[in-house]
Amino acid sequence: MLGTVLYGKNDIRCEEVAEPKILKPTDAIIKLAASCVCGSDLWPYRGLQDMSGPQHMGHEYCGTVVEVGSAVKTVRPGQFVVGSFCLSDNTCPHCRYGFQSSCEHREFMTGAQAPYARVALADGTLVATDTQPDDDLIPSLLAVSDVLGTGWYAADAARVQPGCTAVVVGDGAVGLMGVLSASQMGAGRIIAMSRHKDRQALALEYGATDIVSERGDEGVAKIRELTGGVGADSVLECVGTGESMMQALNAARPGGSIGFVGVPHGVELDGRMLFFQQKSLMGGPAPVRRFLPHLIDLVMTRRINPGKVFDLEIPLRDVAEGYRAMDERRAIKAMLRM
Amino acid sequence: MLGTVLYGKNDIRCEEVAEPKILKPTDAIIKLAASCVCGSDLWPYRGLQDMSGPQHMGHEYCGTVVEVGSAVKTVRPGQFVVGSFCLSDNTCPHCRYGFQSSCEHREFMTGAQAPYARVALADGTLVATDTQPDDDLIPSLLAVSDVLGTGWYAADAARVQPGCTAVVVGDGAVGLMGVLSASQMGAGRIIAMSRHKDRQALALEYGATDIVSERGDEGVAKIRELTGGVGADSVLECVGTGESMMQALNAARPGGSIGFVGVPHGVELDGRMLFFQQKSLMGGPAPVRRFLPHLIDLVMTRRINPGKVFDLEIPLRDVAEGYRAMDERRAIKAMLRM
Repeated sequence: MLGTVLYGKNDIRCEEVAEPKILKPTDAIIKLAASCVCGSDLWPYRGLQDMSGPQHMGHEYCGTVVEVGSAVKTVRPGQFVVGSFCLSDNTCPHCRYGFQSSCEHREFMTGAQAPYARVALADGTLVATDTQPDDDLIPSLLAVSDVLGTGWYAADAARVQPGCTAVVVGDGAVGLMGVLSASQMGAGRIIAMSRHKDRQALALEYGATDIVSERGDEGVAKIRELTGGVGADSVLECVGTGESMMQALNAARPGGSIGFVGVPHGVELDGRMLFFQQKSLMGGPAPVRRFLPHLIDLVMTRRINPGKVFDLEIPLRDVAEGYRAMDERRAIKAMLRM
Repeated sequence: MLGTVLYGKNDIRCEEVAEPKILKPTDAIIKLAASCVCGSDLWPYRGLQDMSGPQHMGHEYCGTVVEVGSAVKTVRPGQFVVGSFCLSDNTCPHCRYGFQSSCEHREFMTGAQAPYARVALADGTLVATDTQPDDDLIPSLLAVSDVLGTGWYAADAARVQPGCTAVVVGDGAVGLMGVLSASQMGAGRIIAMSRHKDRQALALEYGATDIVSERGDEGVAKIRELTGGVGADSVLECVGTGESMMQALNAARPGGSIGFVGVPHGVELDGRMLFFQQKSLMGGPAPVRRFLPHLIDLVMTRRINPGKVFDLEIPLRDVAEGYRAMDERRAIKAMLRM
C-alpha cells in the first residue's frame, strides 16, 4: 500500500510500504476513512526536531475496523471508530484519573497517513460510533482524533467556565478548535489572537467574540484594554514557542489559568517570574480519550462542525503538497483522502 | 522605639528607629502583640538577595489598633487585628478574584519586627477578631499572618481535596503549616518530606500520615513506592530551590497539582519537561487576606494550634539570635516579644 515517510528536512514521500499486521493480541487494524497532516508534523518536517531515521507519519485517524487481535473485546470488524493519537490501556491509574496521555503503557500513534493502520491497545484507545456516520461527518470525526481533542484539552486545562473570558493564542488548527471548545464550554468572551483574515473568519464562526491581530507586547496590551486592565481568566496557548508562552502568561489575570498544548520548542521559564505572575499552568499531550465519547456525540448529533478546519483536501499520493501548503501557511490543515 | 534593621549579609541589628506615623488617610498604626522572623527574611540575611540599602525587617504581625487615618472605616483603635504580609485594598478586580497578593495597589509589609508598625490600606488588609484573644492564642494568630496563610495557599494551589494524597516538600515552618492545612482540608494521606526528628514530630502532630526522610531522586522513589507507583495528587512545594521544585514535580502524578510557595531562587523550568510532566503548577505570594476570616476563626475556636511552630521565643532586642538560630536550623521559627 502507499504510506507517508519523512526522510528529513522538507523530504516527505508517499511510497510503497508494508501493510500493517496484528502484532499483539490487543491490536486492531483499521481502514482509514481519511487522514490528515498535523501541525506537530511540521516540526520534524522543518528540521526543528531530531529524527533517528526515516519516520512513518500520521497519528490522526478514524475509520472502519477490519481485523482485531484475539484479546480485543470492545470493538469488532465493521465498526466505525475514532481513536486518540495517544494509545492507552484506559485501565491504569493515570487513565482512570483522566490522563490517558500519560498511560503507564502509552504509545504514540504512527503511520496513519496511509490507507490502513495498526492501532495498539485497541480496547483502551478506540471508541466506536453508535451508527455508521454519514460521509459528510468524516472530516469532523477525524478532527476529534487530535486537533479538536487537543483544543478541548487546552480549554479544559485553562479551566474555561461558563461566562469566563478566554484568550486563544495561536490561529492554527488547534487554536481554532480551542475557540470552538471554549465556546462549547460556555465562555462569555473569547478573544482570538490571529493575523490572517481567513482564520479570523473561521474563529468568529466558531464563537470568537473579539479578534486581536497584534502579537507580543502589543497583543498583550490589546488584551488588557479589552479586559478593563484585568487580563483573561483562561488562556489557551496553542503554539509552543517562547514568545507565545510569554504572550499567554501576560494575557492572563493573576489567579488565571493557562492551558498549553503547543509542544514547547525552546521554551525556558524562570521560576521567580512564574511565582510573581501567580497563574496556573497546565499542559501536555492531550488526554483525548477522556473527551472522545462527548466529542463524537457532539459531531454525530451535528452540534459542532470541527471538520471545517480542513481547508485543503488532497489525495494521499499528494501528501507532500499538504505539508508544503501548511508549512507556507497556505492551508490551515490538509485532509488526506485514500 | 527599637526596630530591626538588616544592613547586609549576617548583619542584623536591633536599634533605635523612628516611631511609625499615619502617612495616608488609609493607614493604621498597630501595637504589635508579637512579631517573628520569616524564612524569607533569611534570603537577604544570607546575602542571597540584592538589597538597595539598610532594610527595616518584619512583615508578620498581629496586635491592637492604636490609631487610624481619616479614611479608615472597618477597624478602630482598641480592636485586635491580624493582617497579611501583602497589603491590599480588597476591592480591585484581582482582590475580588481572591488574589489579594496581586492587588492593583499591593504593597509588601515592612518594619513589623518592632513594637509598633504602620499598616497601609488598613481597611483592605486588616481583619479584627470578634473578641480580645486570650494571651495563649497570640502565637497562633501571629502565624495566621503569613506562615499559616502561606501553607494554606500552598494546599489550595495544589488543589488538596478530601481523601487525596498530598506530599509536602520542605519541613520549614511553611511546610509544617502546609501539613496542617492539607489535614484541615481533609487530605486522606499526607506525606511530609523531612530529615529532622523534631520537625517530623511536629508534622505528625499536625496530621502527617507518613514521613519520607530521603531527598531528591531517592525521596521521589520513596513517594512512588508509598503511592503504588502512581505519585501524589497534590504536592506543596515550600522551599524554592531548583532541587525542591524538581522533587515536587516528580512526586506528583500526571494530572496532579503542585502549589509552590517557596520564593524561587535559581529555578529554571524547561517548557518541554513541564509539557510531558503534564502537571498543574500554581504558586506565588499567598493571598492570605482571602483566608484570614476562616483561619482566624479556626484559631479563636481553638480547632488548630499553628503557634506551636514557634519553637524559640525571645525578646525583640535579641532578634539577631532569632535570625542566627533559624539560619543554623536550630529553630524552626523565632517569635519576638516586645
